[in-house]
Amino acid sequence: MFSLAIIGATGLVGRKLLDLLEKSNLKNIHLHLFASAKSKGKKIKFRKNILEVKELDETSFHKIDLAFFCAGSLIAKKFLPHAKKAKTIVIDSSSAFRCQKEVPLIIPEINSHMITEKTSLIASPNCSTTILLLPLFLLHKKFRIRRIVAATYQAASGGGINLINKLLNDTKKILLNPNQIQTPLSYGFNLYLHDTKQNDLRYSEEEAKMLFETRKILEDPEILVSATCVRVPVLRAHSIAANVEFHKDFTLDEIYSILKTTPGIRIMEDFTKKRFATPLDATDSFNVFCSRIRKDFSQARTLDLWIVGDQLLKGAALNALQIAEIIINKKRNILCS
Amino acid sequence: MFSLAIIGATGLVGRKLLDLLEKSNLKNIHLHLFASAKSKGKKIKFRKNILEVKELDETSFHKIDLAFFCAGSLIAKKFLPHAKKAKTIVIDSSSAFRCQKEVPLIIPEINSHMITEKTSLIASPNCSTTILLLPLFLLHKKFRIRRIVAATYQAASGGGINLINKLLNDTKKILLNPNQIQTPLSYGFNLYLHDTKQNDLRYSEEEAKMLFETRKILEDPEILVSATCVRVPVLRAHSIAANVEFHKDFTLDEIYSILKTTPGIRIMEDFTKKRFATPLDATDSFNVFCSRIRKDFSQARTLDLWIVGDQLLKGAALNALQIAEIIINKKRNILCS
Repeated sequence: MFSLAIIGATGLVGRKLLDLLEKSNLKNIHLHLFASAKSKGKKIKFRKNILEVKELDETSFHKIDLAFFCAGSLIAKKFLPHAKKAKTIVIDSSSAFRCQKEVPLIIPEINSHMITEKTSLIASPNCSTTILLLPLFLLHKKFRIRRIVAATYQAASGGGINLINKLLNDTKKILLNPNQIQTPLSYGFNLYLHDTKQNDLRYSEEEAKMLFETRKILEDPEILVSATCVRVPVLRAHSIAANVEFHKDFTLDEIYSILKTTPGIRIMEDFTKKRFATPLDATDSFNVFCSRIRKDFSQARTLDLWIVGDQLLKGAALNALQIAEIIINKKRNILCS
Repeated sequence: MFSLAIIGATGLVGRKLLDLLEKSNLKNIHLHLFASAKSKGKKIKFRKNILEVKELDETSFHKIDLAFFCAGSLIAKKFLPHAKKAKTIVIDSSSAFRCQKEVPLIIPEINSHMITEKTSLIASPNCSTTILLLPLFLLHKKFRIRRIVAATYQAASGGGINLINKLLNDTKKILLNPNQIQTPLSYGFNLYLHDTKQNDLRYSEEEAKMLFETRKILEDPEILVSATCVRVPVLRAHSIAANVEFHKDFTLDEIYSILKTTPGIRIMEDFTKKRFATPLDATDSFNVFCSRIRKDFSQARTLDLWIVGDQLLKGAALNALQIAEIIINKKRNILCS
């Protein structure tokens, strides 16, 4: 029996993780749900049981083997010491520990080798980074990425249920009163630059994450990433227009043959119907979609690529679950051997 | 008295042009409205008169000094010979004649010097190109653009009233039945790559236009533009994430001082509030907005820029009207001299 906990079980990522666990092949697990006082006592069905959401406190990790932290950076930082004391392995989806050198930052398809039997804390990357890197990591191995210019089209789900509700409500308001002048900050039929704090180089936190995390995950500190991160009025899936310069030259045939064998990638291109991947294609899909694959005519060794992935799945909950599966399998192998 | 005609007077651009003419300083003009048979007989108020929409035919240009063609490429190609025969000056907003070497492609702030007293046909550029180039042309003069990587966030209005209605209807459907599975081609809370035909290099027509038109307008055939054009669920204004490499190096102070004096440009940046230009800011504004102005840390002599402009105004009707004003003033000067 393996004891799992979801911290932030009533949030968007927590709920999606619960869905995924429900359908997963993981047997013999005990699941515990934790959230803030507000959600205490809520009852949620999981497989054949009804689970009650408990309020997270310092004693919550007692007898928990592995905890998914899906409650943001502040909660992660506050409760990690208590998880450590209880010897609970933590998979954190926030940015709280990603920059710490000793904390592996894992996309299982790419760098699961960084998880050892001693690993007690794993960070799951920023959703845009995960969706960007999944199609690129095998290309990087073969041609080595020099520089990425990325423009993102990020969905509301990245900002949690509150941002989804703002998108729905602001949109309804405009539909009900189309002639009323809207505030330029309405999210209805509107988009805006990612509103995290900017660093001294004028990159937003989200944009800076895409640089730092790319270097860490691909284990190449020389990769350059200049990103512009934008929140668009889309519910669930992130899209990225990526312009990727490699050190070595390539042919499109080579790109296709690598992408076709890249785990988790689906190529979607219909040139006759001019039909390429949309956020609604990627919503609820475990795959990250690649589209509009072309050589950048304006620069040698450069690829243009349109990438779309479900922010809540591969961008968050699915990636965390895949990490957990690796850890649980490692532990069980040890127990069996 | 100057006789003006709007061809396509009941379309989005035609109606916007009518609004602008209504409020413009152009006095002593006679306005004639033409459209397809479908709109024949419609009555539209203009200043103190009620104008009746007439059906466009071969004789329509009789006694018309200047015609705005706002009815797409096919109509433009079909009716240009008749306009020529009647000695009507044509300002065409479609892509029909933009590639013809002898046809000036005009953004008045940039290259009005290409209009001479003999000019009888002027093309107004693609909306994304106009919005991209307005902030860049003075920077080009000073630092010379080498290469632009652009990702666009284009509004529904670029596809006419039908596309706006599709956006509104598809969005309503999702709001009414949030749990119903949507077709991936729904435009409700969804985006898609510009669905014009692709060339041999796999660039869509829209993307290829941004290259060709940039070279023609900036009179520099060596400029490189690699664009990814995307239609987003926004009603009226286009946004562009532009990564612009120059031949000469620059400081951010130099960029700001040039942008501040560039006609038609408004800089909107509030770093404390993390508030930058949105499509709703630019909607109904004559200005093109510039935001998130920063040096690309990943490459020398390269600027990252967020640009937002009203597709129907500077992207179409306003630009056409500005061209007309230059021509009318030239003609009147001749008459007066």
